[in-house]
Order: sequence, then C-alpha cells, then structure tokens
Amino acid sequence: MSVFPGQPPTIALAADGWSVEILDQTALPHRVVIRTLGTAADMAEAIRRMRVRGAPLIGAAAAYGLSLALRDDPSDAGLHAAVSRLRATRPTAVNLAAALERVTAAVRPLAPGARAERAYAEAAAICAEDVALNRAIGEHGIRLLRERASSGRPVRVLTHCNAGYLATVDWGTALAPVYQARAEALPVHVWVSETRPRGQGALTAWELGRAGVPHTVIADNAAGHLLQAGKVEICLVGTDRTTATGDVCNKIGTYLKALAARESDVPFYACVPGPSIDWAARSAAEIPIEERDGDELRVIQTGDSAGQVVHLLPGDTPVANPAFDVTPGRLLTGLITERGVCAASSAGLRGLYPERAGAPPGGGSR
Amino acid sequence: MSVFPGQPPTIALAADGWSVEILDQTALPHRVVIRTLGTAADMAEAIRRMRVRGAPLIGAAAAYGLSLALRDDPSDAGLHAAVSRLRATRPTAVNLAAALERVTAAVRPLAPGARAERAYAEAAAICAEDVALNRAIGEHGIRLLRERASSGRPVRVLTHCNAGYLATVDWGTALAPVYQARAEALPVHVWVSETRPRGQGALTAWELGRAGVPHTVIADNAAGHLLQAGKVEICLVGTDRTTATGDVCNKIGTYLKALAARESDVPFYACVPGPSIDWAARSAAEIPIEERDGDELRVIQTGDSAGQVVHLLPGDTPVANPAFDVTPGRLLTGLITERGVCAASSAGLRGLYPERAGAPPGGGSR
Repeated sequence: MSVFPGQPPTIALAADGWSVEILDQTALPHRVVIRTLGTAADMAEAIRRMRVRGAPLIGAAAAYGLSLALRDDPSDAGLHAAVSRLRATRPTAVNLAAALERVTAAVRPLAPGARAERAYAEAAAICAEDVALNRAIGEHGIRLLRERASSGRPVRVLTHCNAGYLATVDWGTALAPVYQARAEALPVHVWVSETRPRGQGALTAWELGRAGVPHTVIADNAAGHLLQAGKVEICLVGTDRTTATGDVCNKIGTYLKALAARESDVPFYACVPGPSIDWAARSAAEIPIEERDGDELRVIQTGDSAGQVVHLLPGDTPVANPAFDVTPGRLLTGLITERGVCAASSAGLRGLYPERAGAPPGGGSR
Repeated sequence: MSVFPGQPPTIALAADGWSVEILDQTALPHRVVIRTLGTAADMAEAIRRMRVRGAPLIGAAAAYGLSLALRDDPSDAGLHAAVSRLRATRPTAVNLAAALERVTAAVRPLAPGARAERAYAEAAAICAEDVALNRAIGEHGIRLLRERASSGRPVRVLTHCNAGYLATVDWGTALAPVYQARAEALPVHVWVSETRPRGQGALTAWELGRAGVPHTVIADNAAGHLLQAGKVEICLVGTDRTTATGDVCNKIGTYLKALAARESDVPFYACVPGPSIDWAARSAAEIPIEERDGDELRVIQTGDSAGQVVHLLPGDTPVANPAFDVTPGRLLTGLITERGVCAASSAGLRGLYPERAGAPPGGGSR
C-alpha cells in the first residue's frame, strides 16, 4: 500500500530486474520524469544533483548504487571504489554512509560472483524497512495530532523542507503522521515552508496536493509570524542526522522554526527513523555540515517544460550556502521514532533503544 | 554628499522641475533604470509594485506623488482623492501615511493655486530631513560597531531585507552605520539575507558592492546557523513602523533573526528614524500587516535584460504571503535613532523624545 493512488515511486527496480528507476525530483513540481540508472556513476550524479534527496531515500539510493557497481565489478577494489564514490556525494545525512556500510558488511564475506545479488537483496530490505519505519512513525505521530484536534477546524501542522514520501521510499517521516491522519479522516492543514535555496517546499506542496491534503505554501521568513499569530498547533520536521544526545541536524532553517515554536509554546517534534540516529555522535559539532554551490542562491532553474533560468544575483556575488543546521534537543518537544515518542535527549533515546545504551563512540549508526 | 560616487538617486526632481525621477528597483540588480513619473497614478503604481520601496523612501515618494496630483487638480476634492489613492498603496509603513498627513496639513490652509508649490517644498523638506536623520543614525551606530571591532578581522554585521540607501533618500537606516564605518575605514563585512519572497537582499548586495563594502549573501534560512557558529558580531535591521512601546514591525523574517540573535547572545538593533515611530500605536496588534499577492512566491521574475520568468509553484498552489512581522522590544538590544541609542521600550523612547512623553493615543505619527 502506498500513500496515494497513482503515486510514482521514488525509487524502484526496473522491469529488467537490475537497473534502477528514480523519480527525478529536479523536474517536480512541473513534470513527472522517471529516469533509469544503470551505473553507480549515474546514481552518484542523481544523489549529488538531488534528483533523489531526503535522508532515508539517499540511503536506499546509495544501496542500489552499490548494487549497480557490484554488477559491473564485484572485486574488493570495485567495492571500495564504489563506496568511496557514493559516500562522497553528500556528507550530512547519516543514512547514506550507514546504508553503504550495511551493504558492504553483507557482501564482503562473499565470493565476488555472489556479491551483486546479495547487495540487491540488502537494498530491497533497506527499502522495505524504510517504509515500515515511516508507517510506524505515522501511527505514533497521529496521536499527537489527535491531542491537538478541536472541533470545527483542522489541526494546523507546520513543516519545513520535504520530509514527505518523496524524501523516503514511501510515507515520509514528518508527513507520515499527516498521511495517517488523512487515512483516518482526521482533518489537517499543512503550512509548507518554501525552503530556500532549493525550494523543497514545492515538493511538499506537490505531494500533499496529489494526496488531497489541504496545505498553504509560505516563505521561510513567515513561519515566526504564523506561530506568533496562533495559527499552528504542531511543528513536524524530518532529520538528516540525530545525535545520540538528541540534537537534530536537518535542512537549514529548521533551527529558526524551532526557536519560534518555543517562543510561542507550540510543540515541535522531529520525526526520526532509527537509521537517522548517529549513535557515535555525542555532539552536534561532530556533524559535517554540507556547504553547497552558491549558484543555488544566484540562479533559479526549475523543471518546468520551458526549462527557464532566472539569475537572481550577478554571477560574481559572494554567497554562502550551508545546507543544514543543528537544532539542540532542548528546543525540541520530543522525537517521534518508529518505537514511539521520546524526549530529545540521551536518556530519551536510550529508553527507546536500550540495546544502544552501551554503544561505544564510533560504534556505527545502525 | 552621497553614499558612494556614481550612485543613482532613489528619487529626485527631474530637470523640468516638476516631474519626478525614480530609480526602478524592480530592474535591479541587473539594470539601472530611471523612470520619469508625471502623475499621482504613476507614483501609486510605482509604490504598489515596489519600484520604490523602503519605509523612508515611500514616505518621500508619497509626498512627491501628492505634489504631482496637486499640479493637476489642487481642489479639496483633488487633494482628498490623491491622498486616498496614495495611502491605499501600502498599509504597513507609517512613513507613507505620515508624509501624506504632513503635506496635507501644509497645503490645506492655502488657496488651491498655491498648493502644488507648497507640496513640492514639503516633499523636498521630507527628503532632506530623511538624509539628515539617516546620517545621524550612522554616526550613533558606528560606535556600536567600534565596540565590537577586534584587530585582524572585520566587524561582521547581519542585516535583513534592504534598509540601505535604496530604502531611503540616501544613506539608509540599517546600513547607515556600515557606510559610516566605510567612511572612517573601520573594516566591516555584511551578511545579507536574501529576503524572500521579494529578494531585497539582492538590492543590499548591489548597493554594498557598488560602495565597495565586503558582503556575502545567504538564504534567509541560514541566519540562525551563522549566529550559532559565532560568525556575527551585531545585527542591524530597519523598521517600517515602531510602536511607542518599542516593538518593531519590519520585513517578514526579522523576528526569526531576532530570536536567533538572542539565543546566541548577539546584539540586535533596529535603526529607527523618528518618522518611523508610530506614537499612537501602543501595541503591535494595532499594526496592519500587509498581505501581498501569492504570485510573489509562485513566480520569480527579475529585471535582467532577458526579462525571464520562472514558475516555482503551479499557479493553483495555495499561498500565504504576509509581508511584515513584529519583533517585540524585549528581543531587541536597543533602537538606534537619530537622537542616539535607547532601549526598545516606552521608557527608552520617551527618554529620547521627551516632547512625545505625553502624546495621547491617536495623536499622529510625526
């Protein structure tokens, strides 16, 4: 079962049984373009250019990328080169590195001839697990929406970036409770922040529109005003990497919204699938913050059929473009995980993941 | 004296002595376009479409617009109609209504035949006063920059929107201390936030670049991250309307930056020329917040020579577009006015403007 009928999958094996089809998110919201990728280089390009994006989805994409690589060259050298290439695409989301480590651990003991098949199986398992984790987040999260429902109007949710089905294999993380609400006929309305510079709010609006969920797009700058005005019941965001201490590294601008939510006493939750937790990270300072190309701010190029480009700033304008920020756990009301809701703290996470309580620093992230 | 050599004036009388030339800010940063306006309708269009913008500048523009109107029809009916037309262009900045009231008060006692000349004189006086007020803000503000200077690196200023010379007749408000620093060879660097949806950060980058002031453009979302990272010494913003209690209504997103500055113990000042103070407003709730067209979020159109347009969102995407928010005085380190620096509070403002201490509610705004 998927989030809505006619929904194009974000990632799937092609009919040939080995190449990988992705929904090219750079063409959205204007066109639905499916690309077929046949090599690890194709997949690395798709991740780097954000044709596929979202922490859970780039984990799955990297696993399939490694599968494609092992089909071409299953040697140790081939494995090593492909892992390096894929790992270098994007540094912040822990899912990508974790997926590569998981597939590597599964295939390394095998004879080269058996590696590709095993990698495909592991990639498929990562995808299936992602869907299950996100559905569980939706089931825990809808309780928080229900608590804030009042007759006569929808529960107004504020989200940032796209942590919807497009950021995952299905269901989404921050939008999983919203889709669960839709499934249970609990009225919701979603404030969608534009999320400059990449404008992932357009992706969120697109998928909410296709799913029939009422929503309104706002400038990133407008979130504080809406919170001050009492127009938001709950904030739900995703995470690219969560430290073992409950800090959340997510799309740049998340921190500002969390500050404004606290100021207006509006609950603010990050939706955290287990694989996005970096159990080795004890402090946000350990998280590498991706700095992306300044042209993301200088130039607007969208996937509409005319392929138009607008220069917002002259090409020599100095630009800084950090892609993520860190929201300290103390600003979060809690974390919604597949195992339930907990405080955004070491103790909170240990309570839900007791098997991780003794995880040594550097102990990996899954 | 102006801010930098070769600087095109934001507004000026044309050589014919009566029509008004404006720098069309919708063509910046790509082209310098001077438009000559001959009627109040032209001026109303220019204000509404933000060809001229910035609280101080739209006050001056409205005064000239009324002058143009009185040249065509100096009757009481003509005066009334022109005031109504110009006042309806933009509701939030107090300068616009105040300038119209000031010109009206000056011309109403006169015979119709004498009104236009008097209106032009009043508009010129408003312009001259604006420049003097802003220079004084610069002279008070640079002391705050000097206090934060340390050898070996520039004072890093964060600003939002454009409160530079382009928002005024000259010198700017938030950028007046920056230009004063440049004049006194105190090294500064300005973080320029993009300011979606209208992108006035491009205007700020343009004028800083022309003036030779080092600067870097960032997404609105990135301000919190920079503050957390210790990369900002002081935040300076403008104001469209300041309440008598020290709350500041400024471009949407200002509030989020003020929250982040407080969280990181970075001083945050609004630069407040006296005419932007609404002495009648005792609470931010009294300030009308302009809601602008949703197409400002759906469509990007810049003034580059190709006149290109990019659709960010499908035309039927629901959008909310509040243009201003209110930063409570308690979040501000202080207000920099032409009379000095004060606390952002009733007491602070009363101390600098003792003649206003007894101003009754509804007592006008200049």
